[in-house]
Amino acid sequence: MDNSIQNENKNGDVKMNLEIKEKLNEVKSYIGDIEKLTKAIGLLYWDMKTYMPKKSLDSRVGVLEYLSEQEFKLTTGEKVAEFIEFFKGEMKQLDLVDKVMIENLKRNYDETKKIPKDKYLEYVVIASKSEAAWEEAKEKSDFSIFKPHLEKVVEYQKEFVNYWGYKENKYDTLLDKYEKGITVEKLDVIFGELRDGIVELLNKIKNSNKKISKDIFSGKFPVEAQEKFSIEVLKKMGFDFEAGRLDVSVHPFTLDMGSHDVRLTTHYYENEFSSALLSSIHEGGHGIYEQDIPDSLENTKLGTGVSMGIHESQSRFYENIVGRSKEFWTYFLPLAKKYFPEFKDTTLDEFYEAINYVKPSLIRTEADELTYSLHIIIRYEIEKSLINGEIEVGDLPRVWNEKYKEYLGVEPSNDAEGLLQDMHWADGSFGYFPSYALGNVYGAQMLNKLLQDEPNIFKEISVGNLSGVHEWLKENVHKHGSIYTPEELIKNITGEEINTKYFLDYLNNKYLNIYTNIL
Amino acid sequence: MDNSIQNENKNGDVKMNLEIKEKLNEVKSYIGDIEKLTKAIGLLYWDMKTYMPKKSLDSRVGVLEYLSEQEFKLTTGEKVAEFIEFFKGEMKQLDLVDKVMIENLKRNYDETKKIPKDKYLEYVVIASKSEAAWEEAKEKSDFSIFKPHLEKVVEYQKEFVNYWGYKENKYDTLLDKYEKGITVEKLDVIFGELRDGIVELLNKIKNSNKKISKDIFSGKFPVEAQEKFSIEVLKKMGFDFEAGRLDVSVHPFTLDMGSHDVRLTTHYYENEFSSALLSSIHEGGHGIYEQDIPDSLENTKLGTGVSMGIHESQSRFYENIVGRSKEFWTYFLPLAKKYFPEFKDTTLDEFYEAINYVKPSLIRTEADELTYSLHIIIRYEIEKSLINGEIEVGDLPRVWNEKYKEYLGVEPSNDAEGLLQDMHWADGSFGYFPSYALGNVYGAQMLNKLLQDEPNIFKEISVGNLSGVHEWLKENVHKHGSIYTPEELIKNITGEEINTKYFLDYLNNKYLNIYTNIL
Repeated sequence: MDNSIQNENKNGDVKMNLEIKEKLNEVKSYIGDIEKLTKAIGLLYWDMKTYMPKKSLDSRVGVLEYLSEQEFKLTTGEKVAEFIEFFKGEMKQLDLVDKVMIENLKRNYDETKKIPKDKYLEYVVIASKSEAAWEEAKEKSDFSIFKPHLEKVVEYQKEFVNYWGYKENKYDTLLDKYEKGITVEKLDVIFGELRDGIVELLNKIKNSNKKISKDIFSGKFPVEAQEKFSIEVLKKMGFDFEAGRLDVSVHPFTLDMGSHDVRLTTHYYENEFSSALLSSIHEGGHGIYEQDIPDSLENTKLGTGVSMGIHESQSRFYENIVGRSKEFWTYFLPLAKKYFPEFKDTTLDEFYEAINYVKPSLIRTEADELTYSLHIIIRYEIEKSLINGEIEVGDLPRVWNEKYKEYLGVEPSNDAEGLLQDMHWADGSFGYFPSYALGNVYGAQMLNKLLQDEPNIFKEISVGNLSGVHEWLKENVHKHGSIYTPEELIKNITGEEINTKYFLDYLNNKYLNIYTNIL
Repeated sequence: MDNSIQNENKNGDVKMNLEIKEKLNEVKSYIGDIEKLTKAIGLLYWDMKTYMPKKSLDSRVGVLEYLSEQEFKLTTGEKVAEFIEFFKGEMKQLDLVDKVMIENLKRNYDETKKIPKDKYLEYVVIASKSEAAWEEAKEKSDFSIFKPHLEKVVEYQKEFVNYWGYKENKYDTLLDKYEKGITVEKLDVIFGELRDGIVELLNKIKNSNKKISKDIFSGKFPVEAQEKFSIEVLKKMGFDFEAGRLDVSVHPFTLDMGSHDVRLTTHYYENEFSSALLSSIHEGGHGIYEQDIPDSLENTKLGTGVSMGIHESQSRFYENIVGRSKEFWTYFLPLAKKYFPEFKDTTLDEFYEAINYVKPSLIRTEADELTYSLHIIIRYEIEKSLINGEIEVGDLPRVWNEKYKEYLGVEPSNDAEGLLQDMHWADGSFGYFPSYALGNVYGAQMLNKLLQDEPNIFKEISVGNLSGVHEWLKENVHKHGSIYTPEELIKNITGEEINTKYFLDYLNNKYLNIYTNIL
């Protein structure tokens, strides 16, 4: 009797496991289809920004819209509801990856379902018109062209927040889309510390009588040579050109179609050396992250970088912590001299100082490592007020200029170099900007741990061995894809929560060393 | 009373027209979705052959399979059956384009539906394995690797013919897929005349003591210069680089994503001049055809070249009739001299003779203008016998070598330069080959009419004005897309059915002029 019951239980368990296993295969095949659509959309977009003949724009937009609609249909399909229902009681039986995969599927489904379809479709049109209006406004440097469109976008974003719901702060809901777990409460502290620390350091630098120039980066740098040098640097970094490419677009970006097809773009300027190279290194950081994601995460939607903040931590780690270090240029300056006769007489110190030249400026994407975060903090403060209704779109020109004056001591002379410079608001990406500054903070915190694990890492870099950095980042960050939240990940790696101390220490160490002789 | 009936009728008609109009819009929107999928598939394929990182092949094939499945589902969907049913009684009320569009939709639907889905899916796997086996076989020059796969492909093709049905000859059914209206009965006559005429001319040339060499095309021709020269030639031809591109792939091809995005590829050899350029001109002919298709044919599936034969007539017209003419090089040789110092002392006559050098050879894609059609006729005769069961796959090596010996006087020393040279059989494209030779025949027939309409056309070409040729082809061929069948089109243009006389006259005139002093 006992025996027979035992057998029944056993058989029951086996059956249950089999059923779960089968359903997991089914889910993964379904998610695999979504991933295939995402890859096709990715290629259509990449091509549009790189090689597409210009007369094909309308046609291409039509194809992109159609496939995006199919992707949306799959993400919100009845099949997904069935999967969620099936796994509701079985979550404990799943391993970590499968569990997070199902949670992820459910969160996307719920979020999308909360917005009425008509509202969403209205918004797609509004956002698309708003992007076009922004482009025109930026070209003519006239905010009034963009204003009515931005007002609509903000109105819809606020409405979406109401649909999605919020706890403490409306803006939290938007932040969470780009950096899970991040809230206004946390960011006010993090960015407050960052702002105070950077402004203090900036004032010291202003009072330094150390003269630094980046004139050596102006001259004649043939595009072909820049491209070859970029590729040589990327290869040394560990970017795999059999699983990726480097091309040219107006604005640099990284786009992957899975970890075996990761595409970077940069933009070369014949008369300037550092811009394209630093873009290549930055995008290379994003790209290496994606290339390192294990194949086992295919068909789970977890096979990609976990958040924009963690992604930026990798790109900015390579761009700034590595790519602007003296050790990096100890190795690469002699190589650069082979490509660019302009550097014939340049010393390592001159080069190192030039690439770390600090000057408060108006344009975020051209900012130096030190002042960059201030550009982000300004945008964060504005977004927060806007979404919470404390300011209106009409207040933006005034608020923008006031904050630039206050934090950076500079004032835009027109809208194009002021609040029209970035596209993020035009397409409604509110909550995105903080990622960039979070990336700086995460990155320095990781550096601190890396130096404990590998005290000789910069010595390695100085002889052109970047594989130690790469292996450490792969092991600690890349190989996990989106399995852990950003919060879990940084805690797993460093043993503590996000902490601005490391980034501020790093900045102070570095820049007080460069800008000596503080008055 | 009369009045009210009239009104009723009138209202009835209005209602009918409105209903038809609405349904037409619905069909076009549906076909538009299919076209969007086709464009996405096109880009994924183009990218795979040009820029895709090699490690991404498996992933890319997965995406292509998924989208092809979606395209197949739309093409055979219930919605299509509804459309066909609706228009069954209304065909007379449709204008020409709409009528052909619906007929087209129905033919595709019927043909696809006739094959049981399982059979089709089995075949997809078989064809894909067969392609891989062919690649390996070609590399190792070993037909035995490919043989069992080809046997399966042929078996399925024969089975498909039985599902589709046939009247006179089984092979007709396959021919019709590439060239509507063409049959074995017609081709036996056309290709018989062609074979006899060409072999006769070839024998005369063999007996000429005129010494011609194409040594001037061997040397050092930097890829960058070849690319620039190709682009200059294509621009002169009228290829629009704002609606198209020229890139590099292993085998040259043309692929369009609508008339505003037409992509050509070529393949440069640093040590040979003519191969890449003639490929560029050939693909340019295909490309200009697609670029000239009017926007009004979007969303009808008629917005593309009507058949492979007519398409080849355009590419071969540009490659041979224009691109190998003395007038073309009267204009372009001085330009070529600027790009390639090798041509410094080359005279126009030397160049013209070199580019029209005739020599029977083993490889179709490297054949000269005169012997090319014989390569095709050999393949036609073999396919016809194979599909009708008169020979078996095992007979192919023998039959192939016999025919090459008989028609061209050459014999392959291995399988790679024999029956393994082309991919067409590996993926089951039986019925495709004849298009190439039909293109030659159509082209010369069009030339005859063009010379009547524009007697000075070659004088124009000799001063670099190719717009007359382009305009004539656009007006007579390109602008019609797939509205007319190949048969209708050639009749509309030239007033008669396909006729080999013009091509044979053209060849005789040209080559007896070059190879003078026939013994």
